[in-house]
Amino acid sequence: MPIAPPLPTKVAPHLFVILGATGDLTGRKLLPALYRLKQQGELGEQSYILGTAVDTDIDDAGFRARCRRWLAADGVKPEELGSGWCDEHVFYQTLGSGGADEYAALAKRIAALEQQFKLPENRVFYLALPPSVFPTAISRLGEAGLNTSKGWVRLVIEKPFGRDLKSAELLNDIVHQHFKESQVYRIDHYLGKETVQNLLVFRFANSLFEPLWNRDRIECVEITVAETLGVEHRGGYYETAGAMRDMIQNHLTQLLTLTAMESPSSFDAQAIRREKAKVLLSVAPIGPEDVVFGQYTQGTVDAQAVPGYREEPGVAKDSSIETFAALRLEIANWRWHGVPFLLRTGKRMPRHVSQIVISFRRPPVSLFRPFGDCEIQNNSLVITVQPDEGFDLGFEIKKPGREIALDSSRLSFRYSEMFAPLPEAYETLLQDVLIGDPTLFVSDDWVEDSWRIYTPLLERRPPVIPYAAGTWGPEQAKSLVKDLGTQWITR
Amino acid sequence: MPIAPPLPTKVAPHLFVILGATGDLTGRKLLPALYRLKQQGELGEQSYILGTAVDTDIDDAGFRARCRRWLAADGVKPEELGSGWCDEHVFYQTLGSGGADEYAALAKRIAALEQQFKLPENRVFYLALPPSVFPTAISRLGEAGLNTSKGWVRLVIEKPFGRDLKSAELLNDIVHQHFKESQVYRIDHYLGKETVQNLLVFRFANSLFEPLWNRDRIECVEITVAETLGVEHRGGYYETAGAMRDMIQNHLTQLLTLTAMESPSSFDAQAIRREKAKVLLSVAPIGPEDVVFGQYTQGTVDAQAVPGYREEPGVAKDSSIETFAALRLEIANWRWHGVPFLLRTGKRMPRHVSQIVISFRRPPVSLFRPFGDCEIQNNSLVITVQPDEGFDLGFEIKKPGREIALDSSRLSFRYSEMFAPLPEAYETLLQDVLIGDPTLFVSDDWVEDSWRIYTPLLERRPPVIPYAAGTWGPEQAKSLVKDLGTQWITR
Repeated sequence: MPIAPPLPTKVAPHLFVILGATGDLTGRKLLPALYRLKQQGELGEQSYILGTAVDTDIDDAGFRARCRRWLAADGVKPEELGSGWCDEHVFYQTLGSGGADEYAALAKRIAALEQQFKLPENRVFYLALPPSVFPTAISRLGEAGLNTSKGWVRLVIEKPFGRDLKSAELLNDIVHQHFKESQVYRIDHYLGKETVQNLLVFRFANSLFEPLWNRDRIECVEITVAETLGVEHRGGYYETAGAMRDMIQNHLTQLLTLTAMESPSSFDAQAIRREKAKVLLSVAPIGPEDVVFGQYTQGTVDAQAVPGYREEPGVAKDSSIETFAALRLEIANWRWHGVPFLLRTGKRMPRHVSQIVISFRRPPVSLFRPFGDCEIQNNSLVITVQPDEGFDLGFEIKKPGREIALDSSRLSFRYSEMFAPLPEAYETLLQDVLIGDPTLFVSDDWVEDSWRIYTPLLERRPPVIPYAAGTWGPEQAKSLVKDLGTQWITR
Repeated sequence: MPIAPPLPTKVAPHLFVILGATGDLTGRKLLPALYRLKQQGELGEQSYILGTAVDTDIDDAGFRARCRRWLAADGVKPEELGSGWCDEHVFYQTLGSGGADEYAALAKRIAALEQQFKLPENRVFYLALPPSVFPTAISRLGEAGLNTSKGWVRLVIEKPFGRDLKSAELLNDIVHQHFKESQVYRIDHYLGKETVQNLLVFRFANSLFEPLWNRDRIECVEITVAETLGVEHRGGYYETAGAMRDMIQNHLTQLLTLTAMESPSSFDAQAIRREKAKVLLSVAPIGPEDVVFGQYTQGTVDAQAVPGYREEPGVAKDSSIETFAALRLEIANWRWHGVPFLLRTGKRMPRHVSQIVISFRRPPVSLFRPFGDCEIQNNSLVITVQPDEGFDLGFEIKKPGREIALDSSRLSFRYSEMFAPLPEAYETLLQDVLIGDPTLFVSDDWVEDSWRIYTPLLERRPPVIPYAAGTWGPEQAKSLVKDLGTQWITR
C-alpha cells in the first residue's frame, strides 16, 4: 500500500506573496496569522512577505506602517513588535492596473528579493482578491512565468470557487492552464484543522462508533450551521450569493463528506480527498420538494430588535435571495442508502451553533412498554463544531424508584474542558500551505462535484419564504423531517 | 406472545412470619425495612408481623421491646415510633426446640391472628435462619400444613442455597416436597432491584450498545467484586465457605448472566429467568489452569495495618480457605464464543468496588500509526455497581496541537448526580415478595446450573496462594489475562 512520503516538519525558506495586500483579509487574518507563526518559531529562519495590490501610492515603508497598525489592532503591543520584524521581512510592490507589464515588474521584484536574501525560489501566491479578479490574476501570474521556479510555487485561492458548476469548471480550467493541481490550495477557513482532525480521529480511532455508522443503525443525520448574525456590512456580496452558495455548497457539504465518508486507506491528503469525493458522487439528485428557502424579516435575536434582510444596507427592497436553506438528501451507497441527511443553515437564527447530529434507530422492541412512562427516545450522538467544540451522547436510563420509567440522559465531552484554546484556523492553514500539506484544502473535483449537486437547485430556485429573525426558519422546513416523527433536533 | 398478567400495585392484607426473629438479620435488616415500607404507605392497610424463634423466655411484649431497640439503633426516633406500631402490628410465638408440636402451635397462632384481624390468609414465611436449619424448618412448615392457605403463601430463603450441586439439589428437593417453585423467593440481597433494572434498561432501551454486544466487537469482559474488609466476625462461617461459595457462585454469576444474556421476550420474571438460565447452560467447563485462589496475609488497607486471614478469630491457623478467587470462563454460544469472561473477587483488596468492564476490540487498522504518539487504546464501557453506581465510556480523542497524537478520555454518568439516593435493597426486595414479583429472586434451576459450573472446581481445588492484604490478589491472577496483552482493567 503506497504511503505518501512524510511531510517536512520545518518550513523551508520562502517568499509569501499576497495579492490584494491592502485589503481587509490581509489586515485582519493573514498578517496576524503570519506574525504569530513567526513568533512561535514555526516559519523557519527565512520567511519574507511581499505585499502587492492596486494601490500605487504606497511603498515598502507605507505598507509596513499599515502592517504595524493592523497588528496593533489585532492586539500586538508596539513594544513587543519593535521595528525589526516589519522592516526586515515585509515588502511592497504595486500591481497598478494589473497589466502584463506590471506582473513582469512583480516577477523582477520577486527575483530581486530572492537574490538579496539568497532564497531557493519557494513562493506562495495568496489571492486575497475579489473572486471576479481570480481568472485575470491567475492568468497573469502564469504568463509572467511565476507558475514555476527552481523551488516550489503554491497558489492559494479563497472561496467562493465559482458560483455554479459552469463557473467553477471555468475557474478550474484557467487555474490548470497555468498551475498543476498539486500547486493549488483552495482555502475554506470554516473548518479549522483541529475540527477536521478531531472528527476523523473520533470516527477512526474508536471501535465503538464504526459498527453503528450505517443505514442499519442510523435513522437520520442532521447538520446545522446557524448564525445569529444577519448579513452585516456584506449585503452587496450576499445579494450575489445567498445561503446555498455561501454555506451549503462549501461548509455544510464539507461536514457532510467528513461524516459520511468511508475510512481512507491512510491519513494522507490524497486518500482523504478521494473518500470525500466518493461521497459527493453518491449523492442522489435532490428533488424540489426536498429544499426550503427562507429570508429573514425583522424580529428579535438575543433580546435585541433587528431589521429584516430587505432593510439591510446593500440589499434590494424586493430581494429574493435566501438567507436560510434547508434540504434533505440521500447518499446512494451501501452504507447510507435510505438514511436522510438533513442540511440546514441560516442567518438570524436563535443561536450560533454548528452541529452534526447522528440519530440512531430505536430498539426494535420496547421491553418496557407495559410499564407506564416508557417511551424510548432515539439514542443520539451530537458533534458540536462551534461553539465549544465537543460531543454529547444521548441515551436512556431508568428513573430510580419502584416503577419502571425511562429518562433520557447525556454524556458530554468538551475539548475546552480538557485542553487549552485551539490555535486560530488561519494559522494552521497557512502553516499547512508552507509545509505543503493539502489535507484541509479543497480539490478541483470536490468543488465541481459539489456544484454538480447544488446547481440544479439554483437553476430552479424554490420560493423564498419569510421567517422572523430569531426563529429557526420558515415553518415549511419542518416538512423535510415530518416522516421521521420528529422535529429538527438541533434547536 | 403471552404477556404475564400485570402484578398488583398494592400489597394485599397479610401476615409476615419471620423464622429466626430474634437474630441479627431481623434486627438489622428485616424489621427496619418493613417499618420504612409501612411509613411510606407501601404495605397497605393490614400488615402484621409474627416473629418466631427458639427463644422461650420472651412474649409479645418482650419481642416488641426488642423491635423498638432495633429500630432506635437504625435511627428511628422513639417519639416518631410511638408505642402504636409495634403494639398493634408485631407479635411473637416461640418455636422452642422446633418440633412438630411447636409448629402446630405456630399454625394455631397464625390462624388466631388472622381471625382477629380478619386476614385473607396471605402469608410470608421468611427463613432468617442458619442454612443448616433450612431443611428442617421447610419440612416442618409443610407438615404443619402451612404451605397452603385460602390466600397466598410465600417462602423466602436467604442464600447460601446449598454449598455445591448435590446439596443444592437436596435443598431444592425438600423445598419442592412442600412448596411449589412459584411460592419460593430465594433472596440474594447483593443485587438491589435498581441495579438489575438499571442494567437491563441500559442494555435494552438503548440501540447504541446492542450491536456492539458480541464476539465481533468485544475483546473481553471483566467482572470484579472487591472488598476492603476482611472476614470480620464471620470467620467461623467463612471457614465453611470461601470466596467461590460466598461470592462467585451467586453475586458474580448474577452479574455475569445479566451482562451476557440475550434480550428476554418481555420484561417479566419468567422471561428474564429463562435467558439467565440459558447463559449458565452455555458456560464451557472451566479448566484448572483458568482458576487462581488466594488467601490474604497481613498487610495494609486504607493506610491501616490489618491481620492476615489465619489470624482472624474463628479461622484455623492452617486454613486453606480462599479469600480471593479469579477465573476465566467462556460462554459457548453464537454471541460470545471466544470472548474471555474474567471473574474476580477478594477480601482485603485495595478498594471497595463492584464493576463490569466491557473492553471492545481495537480498530482493525490504525490510520494514525505514521504519526508518533498514536497507539490506540481499547474503547471500554465500565459499569459500576458499587459504590457510586453509574458508568464510564472510555474512548480516544485527538490531542490538540499541530501533531497528530491520541489521548484517552472518559464520558461519565453517575446516578447519584442525577437522582436522590436509591432505596435500600431490602425494602425493594421485601416489597417484591409482598407484591409477588419474583424477577429479582433466584430460581431453582439457576441455583443448580450455577453450582454445576463451579462444583468441579471445588472438588479439585487449586492451590491457595498467599497475597498481602491491600493488593489485588496473588501475582498468578495475571496469568489469566496475559494473552489479552493487558492487565486486569479494574484497579
